[in-house]
Amino acid sequence: MPHKILRYTRVLGVDPSLRATGWAVVENGSVRDARRLSLRSLGYGTIRVPASVSLSEALLRIHKDISMAIATHKPEVCAIESTIYVQSHKTAIILGAVRGAALLAAAQAGLAVTEFAPRQVKRSLTGRGGAKKDQVAFMVRALLELDHTPDVDAADALATTIAYFQRNLLTSGSFIL
Amino acid sequence: MPHKILRYTRVLGVDPSLRATGWAVVENGSVRDARRLSLRSLGYGTIRVPASVSLSEALLRIHKDISMAIATHKPEVCAIESTIYVQSHKTAIILGAVRGAALLAAAQAGLAVTEFAPRQVKRSLTGRGGAKKDQVAFMVRALLELDHTPDVDAADALATTIAYFQRNLLTSGSFIL
Repeated sequence: MPHKILRYTRVLGVDPSLRATGWAVVENGSVRDARRLSLRSLGYGTIRVPASVSLSEALLRIHKDISMAIATHKPEVCAIESTIYVQSHKTAIILGAVRGAALLAAAQAGLAVTEFAPRQVKRSLTGRGGAKKDQVAFMVRALLELDHTPDVDAADALATTIAYFQRNLLTSGSFIL
Repeated sequence: MPHKILRYTRVLGVDPSLRATGWAVVENGSVRDARRLSLRSLGYGTIRVPASVSLSEALLRIHKDISMAIATHKPEVCAIESTIYVQSHKTAIILGAVRGAALLAAAQAGLAVTEFAPRQVKRSLTGRGGAKKDQVAFMVRALLELDHTPDVDAADALATTIAYFQRNLLTSGSFIL
């Protein structure tokens, strides 16, 4: 008997940074019997902002592109990487502004937001909190059966959505990815 | 002969914080002969967000209220207090997000943004960079001939617009406030 799809869940993942913000929308067609994740990427990308562009203009572009990704792929929730380490307060204020622009786009579309620490995301994907970025990208490609290895920023956003699905499955019972 | 008004300039001032963001729109009817500022407050207020409200929802409210102030009073530029001191990186990330929401509202309306350090604003108003908040509020009331002393957050936003006008006048010649 084929697995019965109970319900699709779509998650927007965001890995915010001033010059290269990764985003991704991933869908899970959850299956009753196997408690198995059945993940599919609907879209992902990296919002690149050249160093010549002002902070205001960067916020505008990031907000616009995230809003467009939401309008196109219609996620229901948002998973975002939390920020643990920053070099200075100045960097924290700038990164905070970028996160704010992304969070605002999610909030304006009515998406609830869940935060994940970078180590948590890496552990979900590779079993190790200290995994390298290219290992994460490699696992993301394998798990989502992508044709290409995504760049590291988009891969982090994709990985954040996978961490979300895994945690939700964990809290609701056993799972096989 | 009466002074001839050359041109009005309207400035949006913002003093961002998670729970009490001050905003103000102040107009200068600049006068040819006296090189004197002729300032008038068009509107000001404090966007209060209770501690029970999530960061996402707070960003939504702050963005919405600043956007509404811009739509109502039609400022041409934005002056915002820069953030110098923060207790921790975590606070900096949150304050950064609030600044991001306010900056985004300004950028979406096409306003150029100028930053002022808090000491610079205080010195503009009181002659002393270390002035207390209630001194700033007192001076703001006197300079703008307000009926009431505004609360400290709105007063900081009003003060930021005054710092903007003073600096512009300073760079274009002598001035009398």
